[in-house]
Amino acid sequence: MTSTRETDRRERVHQLMQTGQTHMIAALEAFEPNATFGGRNWQRPGGGGGAARVLADGAVFERAGVNVSAVHGASVPPSLAAKHPSALGQPFYATGLSIVVHPLNPYAPSFHANYRYFESGDIAWFGGGADLTPHYLFEEDVAHFHHVLELQCRRHDVDHASLRRACDDYFCIKHRGERRGVGGIFFDELPAADADFEPALAFVADGIETLERAYAPLVERRHATPYGERERRWQLLRRGRYVEFNLVYDRGTLFGLQTSGDIEAILMSMPPTAQWAFDAAPEPGSAEERMLDALRNRSE
Amino acid sequence: MTSTRETDRRERVHQLMQTGQTHMIAALEAFEPNATFGGRNWQRPGGGGGAARVLADGAVFERAGVNVSAVHGASVPPSLAAKHPSALGQPFYATGLSIVVHPLNPYAPSFHANYRYFESGDIAWFGGGADLTPHYLFEEDVAHFHHVLELQCRRHDVDHASLRRACDDYFCIKHRGERRGVGGIFFDELPAADADFEPALAFVADGIETLERAYAPLVERRHATPYGERERRWQLLRRGRYVEFNLVYDRGTLFGLQTSGDIEAILMSMPPTAQWAFDAAPEPGSAEERMLDALRNRSE
Repeated sequence: MTSTRETDRRERVHQLMQTGQTHMIAALEAFEPNATFGGRNWQRPGGGGGAARVLADGAVFERAGVNVSAVHGASVPPSLAAKHPSALGQPFYATGLSIVVHPLNPYAPSFHANYRYFESGDIAWFGGGADLTPHYLFEEDVAHFHHVLELQCRRHDVDHASLRRACDDYFCIKHRGERRGVGGIFFDELPAADADFEPALAFVADGIETLERAYAPLVERRHATPYGERERRWQLLRRGRYVEFNLVYDRGTLFGLQTSGDIEAILMSMPPTAQWAFDAAPEPGSAEERMLDALRNRSE
Repeated sequence: MTSTRETDRRERVHQLMQTGQTHMIAALEAFEPNATFGGRNWQRPGGGGGAARVLADGAVFERAGVNVSAVHGASVPPSLAAKHPSALGQPFYATGLSIVVHPLNPYAPSFHANYRYFESGDIAWFGGGADLTPHYLFEEDVAHFHHVLELQCRRHDVDHASLRRACDDYFCIKHRGERRGVGGIFFDELPAADADFEPALAFVADGIETLERAYAPLVERRHATPYGERERRWQLLRRGRYVEFNLVYDRGTLFGLQTSGDIEAILMSMPPTAQWAFDAAPEPGSAEERMLDALRNRSE
């Protein structure tokens, strides 16, 4: 049985995710003279569903996706039960907000954020974070992004350094020895059962509200910077790396593909266009090489 | 100790792969008014190496890779030993030829082939095959491709139907419910120890020689067909599917990424450009839909 209290909590978290979706869609559409978000709702055969919202071919955003899902089931997925034996055979509930933004201008960074809530029997947790994937390195952009996230952590007595480290560790393209981007914050299982619920919810609510403040100023700064073929080419090659990370390593993507979720909603994270080239090394001393160096050597 | 006979066999197979590489490079370059293959040789820290040969931005081929590798090591990789316990702790030798061709014209099909030889202690086998990935369905092209491979199998009393079925089963993008292409032949472990060596080698040698006959006529037929934005767009979306297969399912690619082979040589299979779009379904009754139907419903 689901108690009223559990239902209340689920409803509050789901509402939070939906508000975050509405808010982020408005923040991104504000940059666009004409383009707006479309998309559709989808149902999960096992229970629940989601609302996929996508903007394509905008003047500023080549592709942006802002999805909310809320699914439930009679029995916890095996991969999760293996890690949490007490959840074996228990019903579960999970809701999440996922955001992926690929601007058209190569100088404007790509952005990803995800916040999720999972509950089964006695266990409950939040996971998520936000991270930045620039194609060109502007130290002031990177500093702004980390600073805003650090302030968020401070407001809740959360150790920013360890969440930032976890982000660097997670978004690593191991076969390339490169990080996907310049990081952000990442946490996997923030306890949210019983008395942990309210503080965890407050942190996540603040995190969702912080996203616009972390990212929008960078789009504002960079989206109109003139660029040419060279910058576009580099952006597309870096997006190829983005694809490599998402399809080879990203747990959420692989879990989604294995459990037959809504494929289009899951792969909304793919960039609109990506390229690969053999031995495409940037010129020594170039801005492209500076970016690559930062992805290879930045504070491990 | 490696006996003279083993050395002879390895040398013969490696020679075969190298001849196949030279031959395929000549066959592909014959289509190109100017572009030629470049590339480089690479060394494997554990022993051996390879010769990666790549043609990029040709008039006919947007990207083509023809690689030969020959590696050896003191101890069989764990994933292999799990399947073949007698090989545990044994030294091994492996050589292979890999070919991936992505033409520029959307009406010209992409092509992949791989032949490989593995030897450790008492065990030895060949694996490989060839498969076609068109973006538009021309029944006569598909028929030609399968016919040429069927003749190859017949010349060696090999059951073509089962190799064709294995190919359909292998090149399946499970999360899409689609095959990557229209198939070809695929076999995983054709015994090649002792008396099995000569007939297996003959089959593989014929297979390598057959590749040009199977594929080149299709390029000849289609490479100059006029096309527009629509066909290019569809080609790039289908190449997105190609990327999904290679990074999520292809054993060779994943094995390569995990064992830190030469990343550029491994990911030579990636298309030069690929796209993703949300819910990009072809128009009812269109040529694009006909292609997709064939990938979804063709003879399971």
